[in-house]
Amino acid sequence: MTTGIVRDRSEKLGFPPGSLIFVGEQKTDNVVLTVSNYDVEHFEEKTAASIEDCLSYRDLPSTTWIHVCGLHRPDIIESLGSCYGIHHLFLEDILNTAQRPKMEDLEDGLFIVMKAFTLSGDETTAAEQVSFILGENYVISLQEGNDDIFEPVRSRLRSSRGRIRSLGPDYLLYALMDTVVDHYFSVLEVLGERIGVLEDELLVDHTQETMPQIHRLRRELLFLKKTIWPLREVISAMLRSETGLIRQTTQFYIRDLYDHVIQVVDSLENYRELTSALLEIYLSSVSNRMNEVMKVLTIIATIFIPITFIAGVYGMNFEFMPELKWRWGYALVWGVMIAMIVAMLNYFRKKKWL
Amino acid sequence: MTTGIVRDRSEKLGFPPGSLIFVGEQKTDNVVLTVSNYDVEHFEEKTAASIEDCLSYRDLPSTTWIHVCGLHRPDIIESLGSCYGIHHLFLEDILNTAQRPKMEDLEDGLFIVMKAFTLSGDETTAAEQVSFILGENYVISLQEGNDDIFEPVRSRLRSSRGRIRSLGPDYLLYALMDTVVDHYFSVLEVLGERIGVLEDELLVDHTQETMPQIHRLRRELLFLKKTIWPLREVISAMLRSETGLIRQTTQFYIRDLYDHVIQVVDSLENYRELTSALLEIYLSSVSNRMNEVMKVLTIIATIFIPITFIAGVYGMNFEFMPELKWRWGYALVWGVMIAMIVAMLNYFRKKKWL
Amino acid sequence: MTTGIVRDRSEKLGFPPGSLIFVGEQKTDNVVLTVSNYDVEHFEEKTAASIEDCLSYRDLPSTTWIHVCGLHRPDIIESLGSCYGIHHLFLEDILNTAQRPKMEDLEDGLFIVMKAFTLSGDETTAAEQVSFILGENYVISLQEGNDDIFEPVRSRLRSSRGRIRSLGPDYLLYALMDTVVDHYFSVLEVLGERIGVLEDELLVDHTQETMPQIHRLRRELLFLKKTIWPLREVISAMLRSETGLIRQTTQFYIRDLYDHVIQVVDSLENYRELTSALLEIYLSSVSNRMNEVMKVLTIIATIFIPITFIAGVYGMNFEFMPELKWRWGYALVWGVMIAMIVAMLNYFRKKKWL
Amino acid sequence: MTTGIVRDRSEKLGFPPGSLIFVGEQKTDNVVLTVSNYDVEHFEEKTAASIEDCLSYRDLPSTTWIHVCGLHRPDIIESLGSCYGIHHLFLEDILNTAQRPKMEDLEDGLFIVMKAFTLSGDETTAAEQVSFILGENYVISLQEGNDDIFEPVRSRLRSSRGRIRSLGPDYLLYALMDTVVDHYFSVLEVLGERIGVLEDELLVDHTQETMPQIHRLRRELLFLKKTIWPLREVISAMLRSETGLIRQTTQFYIRDLYDHVIQVVDSLENYRELTSALLEIYLSSVSNRMNEVMKVLTIIATIFIPITFIAGVYGMNFEFMPELKWRWGYALVWGVMIAMIVAMLNYFRKKKWL
Amino acid sequence: MTTGIVRDRSEKLGFPPGSLIFVGEQKTDNVVLTVSNYDVEHFEEKTAASIEDCLSYRDLPSTTWIHVCGLHRPDIIESLGSCYGIHHLFLEDILNTAQRPKMEDLEDGLFIVMKAFTLSGDETTAAEQVSFILGENYVISLQEGNDDIFEPVRSRLRSSRGRIRSLGPDYLLYALMDTVVDHYFSVLEVLGERIGVLEDELLVDHTQETMPQIHRLRRELLFLKKTIWPLREVISAMLRSETGLIRQTTQFYIRDLYDHVIQVVDSLENYRELTSALLEIYLSSVSNRMNEVMKVLTIIATIFIPITFIAGVYGMNFEFMPELKWRWGYALVWGVMIAMIVAMLNYFRKKKWL
Repeated sequence: MTTGIVRDRSEKLGFPPGSLIFVGEQKTDNVVLTVSNYDVEHFEEKTAASIEDCLSYRDLPSTTWIHVCGLHRPDIIESLGSCYGIHHLFLEDILNTAQRPKMEDLEDGLFIVMKAFTLSGDETTAAEQVSFILGENYVISLQEGNDDIFEPVRSRLRSSRGRIRSLGPDYLLYALMDTVVDHYFSVLEVLGERIGVLEDELLVDHTQETMPQIHRLRRELLFLKKTIWPLREVISAMLRSETGLIRQTTQFYIRDLYDHVIQVVDSLENYRELTSALLEIYLSSVSNRMNEVMKVLTIIATIFIPITFIAGVYGMNFEFMPELKWRWGYALVWGVMIAMIVAMLNYFRKKKWL
Repeated sequence: MTTGIVRDRSEKLGFPPGSLIFVGEQKTDNVVLTVSNYDVEHFEEKTAASIEDCLSYRDLPSTTWIHVCGLHRPDIIESLGSCYGIHHLFLEDILNTAQRPKMEDLEDGLFIVMKAFTLSGDETTAAEQVSFILGENYVISLQEGNDDIFEPVRSRLRSSRGRIRSLGPDYLLYALMDTVVDHYFSVLEVLGERIGVLEDELLVDHTQETMPQIHRLRRELLFLKKTIWPLREVISAMLRSETGLIRQTTQFYIRDLYDHVIQVVDSLENYRELTSALLEIYLSSVSNRMNEVMKVLTIIATIFIPITFIAGVYGMNFEFMPELKWRWGYALVWGVMIAMIVAMLNYFRKKKWL
Repeated sequence: MTTGIVRDRSEKLGFPPGSLIFVGEQKTDNVVLTVSNYDVEHFEEKTAASIEDCLSYRDLPSTTWIHVCGLHRPDIIESLGSCYGIHHLFLEDILNTAQRPKMEDLEDGLFIVMKAFTLSGDETTAAEQVSFILGENYVISLQEGNDDIFEPVRSRLRSSRGRIRSLGPDYLLYALMDTVVDHYFSVLEVLGERIGVLEDELLVDHTQETMPQIHRLRRELLFLKKTIWPLREVISAMLRSETGLIRQTTQFYIRDLYDHVIQVVDSLENYRELTSALLEIYLSSVSNRMNEVMKVLTIIATIFIPITFIAGVYGMNFEFMPELKWRWGYALVWGVMIAMIVAMLNYFRKKKWL
Repeated sequence: MTTGIVRDRSEKLGFPPGSLIFVGEQKTDNVVLTVSNYDVEHFEEKTAASIEDCLSYRDLPSTTWIHVCGLHRPDIIESLGSCYGIHHLFLEDILNTAQRPKMEDLEDGLFIVMKAFTLSGDETTAAEQVSFILGENYVISLQEGNDDIFEPVRSRLRSSRGRIRSLGPDYLLYALMDTVVDHYFSVLEVLGERIGVLEDELLVDHTQETMPQIHRLRRELLFLKKTIWPLREVISAMLRSETGLIRQTTQFYIRDLYDHVIQVVDSLENYRELTSALLEIYLSSVSNRMNEVMKVLTIIATIFIPITFIAGVYGMNFEFMPELKWRWGYALVWGVMIAMIVAMLNYFRKKKWL
Repeated sequence: MTTGIVRDRSEKLGFPPGSLIFVGEQKTDNVVLTVSNYDVEHFEEKTAASIEDCLSYRDLPSTTWIHVCGLHRPDIIESLGSCYGIHHLFLEDILNTAQRPKMEDLEDGLFIVMKAFTLSGDETTAAEQVSFILGENYVISLQEGNDDIFEPVRSRLRSSRGRIRSLGPDYLLYALMDTVVDHYFSVLEVLGERIGVLEDELLVDHTQETMPQIHRLRRELLFLKKTIWPLREVISAMLRSETGLIRQTTQFYIRDLYDHVIQVVDSLENYRELTSALLEIYLSSVSNRMNEVMKVLTIIATIFIPITFIAGVYGMNFEFMPELKWRWGYALVWGVMIAMIVAMLNYFRKKKWL
């Protein structure tokens, strides 16, 4: 997870607005188009489709869903765009993987950009940009990565599980966005566990690694916040949209989606507060350890410095030092020194330093 | 009290929206339905009722209150839902015990989710989800736990104490929610006492346990805030609701309830500020103790290091050291050393270190 | 001054809403009713009045002011309430001395709750709840304590000083609230002086008592903020009230009152910032003192440890140590040691530690 | 610059609202009235004028400007007020030098209170209250101090420089307020320089005086903020005023003035952030110095304590200590000790402590 | 990059409003006017033009773009202003290089002020003020510096690349502002890299330079925030402008520009949080190093002080000290001392200090 937004953007400096430049990581994989067409009764699916395939479904009354995996071929995106009449500024936004989540009303459609997160095996999170275009009878979805995150939705379409086949393209859009938002909860769960582990560790003790770990956590929370906060506006703008593309029944579901996003945002805020709390525990733990170190030093020094002084006194070479000749002088000095040690230890015990 | 929201949620990943899955703790207790039916003149009550019992009251003009204790049997909730025509998305919210408090206008009803807190004997707080559905002539309440928290309301109904029998289902809803909110005050009281105790302890001294205690306090306040803040919107949305189910007279009471929630939220804010203050007192107390430790070390070292040096000088074995032969050399050295000690002590007294 | 809100509230748990329970401190003093009736030409006053006295004035066209000192007799409040037709929920608010300041439009009146502060001789502040009910031709004021804080207003009424006799019950309400708000300024003055004194002390040095004093200050400011902030809404709600009870001329004065409350709130914000600043000065003063302690230790140790080592060297008992036999060995060693001390002192002076 | 607001206010406790009491510093200087009357063609000026002089201009169609220097004679303010029909509550605000900046619509005029700052020779800032009353054909300005801050405006009027003579009383009001706001920039400049100087000093080192200086800065910024923030509302209220006294052409200038105030407020915010940054630099500088002190102590102690121990060992008086008899024993011990010193120094160099 | 706003402003004190005074750095370079006139078919360009040149294009239907490099000749600005009928207050804003970004509706135009940033070779950023006046058929742009930052736009005009020649003056204005905003991304990138470098350094260790670097970063972020935040309002005011000068098609592009500014502001907020995080890492790193220093001291002292004491004991000169005569006394003492060292080291290892 990186916050690489700015680095990417500046590569575009000097190009006229609306230039189609993919700013993400260049890959050699193919860009894969998957076209599905369905209504209540039938379902048709074409993987590894061409632009021409897409075009052939455009004017059918049944719902068409075109899913594009991979954004590193601007030419494909451009021909798709011109085929469905999408303004070049939106194509630019699709390709600009540093785009902030947003929604725009097209004349006869909705354009939505958001970020998806996927967890790989070792619990690291990868972010990728996902864009949607909703038309009268189609949904186009474009994702940055190559692992199709919408496969579960397609399988529901195939098997006609749930209401999805009967509720048109706006419900499909909802189902896709809901899939993305559901993944946010997994990311939150992983983060929550990392916070919990750090917390448990810290209340015992801190290590060299604690501060970098807290800092990484904060960076990730900052990035998530930046990515997810604008989604609230995106979804509430969808609800207020005047295109009429989002029907009453679907609005109901989208309000539910809005609710989930609010819940994610709430949890993020929560995590940020917990992370600040972690930092404070860490700092107090550093101070406490210092305290402990100093206490050990003080106890040792306070016990031995005075008795070392006494030993030093009787190491002096004055000719006239009567104590040196006493029969029990040596024993007496030991007695005094032990008494001093006992007194000091009592003092420390009273001060609760021991 | 845990903030386990995220953990629970992610179990639902991959299910289509509206799937009825109970995400809370699984229990073996029965789900208990209690049905009450009343108007000004009569009161009827059936505990351990079946769905069919519920159904039989549905079309009576008198007020019906169905209370469900325990959410771990989705099938029961589902049949209840289909009996009263509740949308599956709301049933999903009822079962999702990690749901954020919210209110939704149904076509002919209100749907409300909130959290209830109960104090057990040892002053630990348990949170459970409570949902309400208000219809023309009925209230359905569902709680996660098995201890019926609404027994006092039922007993008021039974004995016809107060206005409750004469004011219809909206007033009943108010009475139930008021019961939940009243419990918030008990939780606040316990928290307030814990803050007070910590404060008194801290102004004297801190222990190993102080920091974890402050941290637990903060977590609980965070959780409470997250749980109770949305309630303000919930209740003000009830007041603005256009279903007409909440009559003028009841609105009056609900405004009072709103007032109470504001008061709870105010107190929570207060507690959060006091908890930050606690943390600052704690940190300053750590610094102060360090200061004290260092002062002891400095006083001891500053007194004994110089005189130990003097003793060291006269422990040297030079052949020509005239002082060693003086008659009063030894006494003189003691004199010098005592003078130095006195001077140091005076210095420390002037510096107010003693 | 305590923040005892929560403790008080929870005593009411389990009672149906609208139960009249006095949650403040129980007292044995009588509840004193004072009834005044006046218009431009006449003024009549009855102290220690009964409910019947109040009733007799109810339908007169002249302005009636009923002032109740003491809230610990719910029965008296209740009969007064039923006599003037006040809803039992408002009576509950009057008795609930933990009530947040608020204003409510009654059908034919205004209901206002706020907090008054009085300074006793030793500059401690006592808070008490004050409630007002404004009707067509009357004002009822109720205060928690027994010392009538509105005596100055009554004396102005008696002597017909200012415009008060000619401007009706809404102006009277204004005059009473203005008296309460004027006392806020006294409390602020005392707090301001305490902050100033602490500031002066702290810029010199801190003591054991500093931190608890700062903490007490913060608690009091928190309490004041919680008590006074809602007053802004209360007064601006009065200005927007649609009952028509507050006439144009009085609105003018109430805007002035609003202004004063804003000024109090501004000062409170100011004080809170100054108190945070105090805390920072305190913490930096703790660090500085630590620095000073460490400097003394370091100077002493750095000077004496090396020369003690030298003394130690010539205290060794090797048979072959040529220096020991030198005529000027001892003097040389002293020379070296003094040179080291001088060098160290110069170093410390250069570092500005001396 | 003091924040003496609260102290002043409480002197008014007990007086009925609208009492004219001057709460500022009492002076023996005269209150000076200067009356100017002008239109495009003529300009007339009368210094040290009487109330009667003011009255004689009241009904002329040309613009009259009455400027009052000094507020310590309530009787003069009162007669001026009654002469121009100003409500006693406004007169009270004029005299109450602790008044928050505000604007009020009079029936046929505008009333404005704000604070002016003047820099004296030694760069200390003095605040004084300035009030304005704008009528159909007149402006009355009242300032607390005795040094006429509006002399530059009068001289522009005299010499007919700029547009001022042709644009009526609303433009005059603008010109006066603009003069006051222009002075804010001077104050900001002085503060900015003080912050810059402190910053430069702190990045080198701190002194005893640093903390009090930072604290003074913060207090002054707090005071400025409190004084200048409300001005935004004042000016935007002027722009929205419905009296029609501020004509279209002047609105244009007042929007410019608004802009300047926003700029001042922005700079203040900036300064507050820089001052917090100063505090953090200060605290880190204190920590750093402590670190340095401790490093010196540790280096000295770590080098000398072990070798002192060695010297101590060979100072023991055991009869059988073979090393003592070795020919090169003494030289060997020195060798070991020097080796240890070198090793330690290398260790410290590796740790970058040297 | 400096925050010199206040310094500059105060030079204008005493001048009547609307005086044309250039407050920036005085330069000796010429002020260069470049006039371009174009429509879809033709493009004409005149560098180093005179005011008369500008005038001659004024009434042509094709679009005219006048670009002024350098603001240090108020007379030129003034004649340009009078030629195009620009109000002197706007001319004042153009020359006042400390002007806050703003937009104003002229009667028949738009006036916009903003800040441009340019990166020089060594990655230092220079800020300069840029103003735009949009009329029916012209755009006037004025920049403070002498390096024409709009050359890329002119070259696009020349070569007729993109849509720029066909979309009129409002699109030209958009293209110019877009160029300025694109440069913000470069500045952000440089800042982001500096933050990243500091972060990496700090997680290893800090140096003398760290704190000043963090502080410089904060000052720059403060300055950027102050400069860029108001731009949001500027652009959204452009979108709401009622002059009709910004046509539907261009609004679309300006919304995109707005989006970019939001993205810049988001990143700035992000950076500010990261910089605070840096400070916290720095402070914790200072504490940690202190901890380490203290640990070294404590370990050394705790090991050697006790055994030095033992050596001291057997350096005493008592006549009767039986151990001194033992055959293996010396060896035994060494044994005890080594045992103590081992015990201490074990203790430290258990405490994880080693």
